[in-house]
Amino acid sequence: MKKRIAVLPGDGIGKEVTRGAVDILNAIGERFGHQFYFSYGKIGGSAFESEGTPLPDETIELCKESDAVLLGAVGGPQWDRLPVHLRPEQGLLKIRKELNLYANLRPTNYYESLVESSPLRKEVIEGVDMLIVRELTGGLYFGKPSERSQQDGKDVVVDTLFYQRAEMYRVIKLAFEVAKGRKKKVTSVDKANVLESSRMWREVAEEVSAQYPDVELEHMLVDNAAMQMIKNPKRFDVVVTENMFGDILSDEASVLTGSLGMLPSASLSENGPYLYEPIHGSAPDIEGKNIANPLAMILSVAMMLRTSFGLEEEAEAVENAVNEVLNAGYRTQDILSFGNRAVSTNEMVAEVKATI
Amino acid sequence: MKKRIAVLPGDGIGKEVTRGAVDILNAIGERFGHQFYFSYGKIGGSAFESEGTPLPDETIELCKESDAVLLGAVGGPQWDRLPVHLRPEQGLLKIRKELNLYANLRPTNYYESLVESSPLRKEVIEGVDMLIVRELTGGLYFGKPSERSQQDGKDVVVDTLFYQRAEMYRVIKLAFEVAKGRKKKVTSVDKANVLESSRMWREVAEEVSAQYPDVELEHMLVDNAAMQMIKNPKRFDVVVTENMFGDILSDEASVLTGSLGMLPSASLSENGPYLYEPIHGSAPDIEGKNIANPLAMILSVAMMLRTSFGLEEEAEAVENAVNEVLNAGYRTQDILSFGNRAVSTNEMVAEVKATI
Ligand SMILES: CC(C)[C@H](C(=O)O)[C@@H](O)C(=O)O
Ligand SMILES: CC(C)[C@H](C(=O)O)[C@@H](O)C(=O)O
Repeated sequence: MKKRIAVLPGDGIGKEVTRGAVDILNAIGERFGHQFYFSYGKIGGSAFESEGTPLPDETIELCKESDAVLLGAVGGPQWDRLPVHLRPEQGLLKIRKELNLYANLRPTNYYESLVESSPLRKEVIEGVDMLIVRELTGGLYFGKPSERSQQDGKDVVVDTLFYQRAEMYRVIKLAFEVAKGRKKKVTSVDKANVLESSRMWREVAEEVSAQYPDVELEHMLVDNAAMQMIKNPKRFDVVVTENMFGDILSDEASVLTGSLGMLPSASLSENGPYLYEPIHGSAPDIEGKNIANPLAMILSVAMMLRTSFGLEEEAEAVENAVNEVLNAGYRTQDILSFGNRAVSTNEMVAEVKATI
Repeated sequence: MKKRIAVLPGDGIGKEVTRGAVDILNAIGERFGHQFYFSYGKIGGSAFESEGTPLPDETIELCKESDAVLLGAVGGPQWDRLPVHLRPEQGLLKIRKELNLYANLRPTNYYESLVESSPLRKEVIEGVDMLIVRELTGGLYFGKPSERSQQDGKDVVVDTLFYQRAEMYRVIKLAFEVAKGRKKKVTSVDKANVLESSRMWREVAEEVSAQYPDVELEHMLVDNAAMQMIKNPKRFDVVVTENMFGDILSDEASVLTGSLGMLPSASLSENGPYLYEPIHGSAPDIEGKNIANPLAMILSVAMMLRTSFGLEEEAEAVENAVNEVLNAGYRTQDILSFGNRAVSTNEMVAEVKATI
């Protein structure tokens, strides 16, 4: 198989971890006889530095011509004072919109070997296997107006939570499709006791649900969901929600099992390419120190192999290698606990590579 | 001291726990020589049943004429299919607006005696002492438009996140005032990398902060806040945020220490009366079983004594009685753990009363 992959390292540790991802893909290509062609693009603060914009047109073009996109991370304090439209995260928001990446998938899994890194008790998190499907191109993130004005001589401001019904439909449908291949349960999260958009969301969830008699649907208010994730995360299989609620809940979910540095994500569109990124962000404080955990990025590569290229065996080879390396006791400092072996970013990548 | 207190039992276990609160207030009145006059009003589903509206005008009048308001809880599945404007929670939203209750204060405390009820590890929650100050009468909850329409032949929906700058100012100011009497740290939570309203919020926080050189201000993005609450809840002192973020984060915070059934809240206005309620909701599944935990409501009474009436000694008498009863091993079923003594709602109230 031949595939073109756009690699967007971005900022901070994004550069270090994407380097590791490319190494791993090369190893997979070698072992299974595939050819992966990498082409690099700029995004975020580093794109602003050299091109004056957080998302140059060439990057958009590159992504559109590729079979999949690997993204490191964007952002850093040195760009926080820039005008909004030039800040690194605008590059991220724009690429989502340009590639029409309407669904962000974030698995949260329990790792036996990492249980000591979790703030939660073992009984609470043992066996957690949850997937959050977040709507990614609508809602408060893109609604207009989003602006200040004067009203009766007073300073006021407005942001707009806007959705087309069809935007709700496609992401909820995707959640049900994914649930079919899992534990067959969808938790649809909204705030239907307050928001009109949530009441529409709930209706659409019911409508989609009627097409999936084998999949159970439950509705849950977002405030309750924020509680249940901590009290009883095992009760969730697939969680689907709108953009802002998804932003908050998926970050909440990401720390439950103590494996933040291990969590991949995939963002899907109707016709591809899809984008894969670790959820940990650019972590400017540890940039360049060769201590970042590359496993989230490597597991994002596994998601890419499976979801974009249909290479199930190859995806499992990556995931198994990660598990073996963890079981052998190798740990970057973020997941280090007593009795294990501390390794650098590069050493961790090398171990996974050797295992593949 | 003579005080008039409006009591709104509402629905579900609201009725049981407000009965306990009145008992406790009578005990306090007797011991300290105060007269509390109780007058009862309807709200929520039970108000709808008898008056056809979740908030009758008489209830609003009653509250406005009182020195403080005690609310049980509203809601229940039997009213979920009503048209939106008749549902129980509309009563709650409307009373907030009518009484101009712009700030909701929710303490989350660590109870040594309840550590086993928490999903988190002891090391993580030991010593947690956090207060969330949530803006309560603005944002997505009340912004217009909040409606469906057709756009280019498509079904669309919009909700509106609207704030006056002055609404941000008063609640952030209140947070700093409260922080002065605590650990002198304010964490202002927003989503300034996406929302214009959050960027204004951040500016206002800076502006207020300049008046409080002794109080530290930090800004935190809401997704990060959702993580930090779990990873390191001890780092927070006062957290201030807008209405919807506050709804989500305060419910998240409420389960950290395992004491959901113990947590009170106060909603403040500029000129009173203030409203006090437990945060646990109406819990229709255990209604009428005499097993609900009355301590959240009783601790709300303590907040009322202190905040509305300035009765510090009396407030402490209530809080100390609660602690003594817990230390003596009495537990309602929600906080029951091995070796303790299971009691009913009424028995718990009686124990606290006897201790006072
Ligand atoms: C950087 C930011 C704009 C972004 C978001 O809010 O979507 C991030 O938090 C994420 O979840 O990918
Ligand atoms: C019942 C509901 C409208 C309410 C809210 O969202 O404010 C509740 O969740 C709360 O936090 O008091």
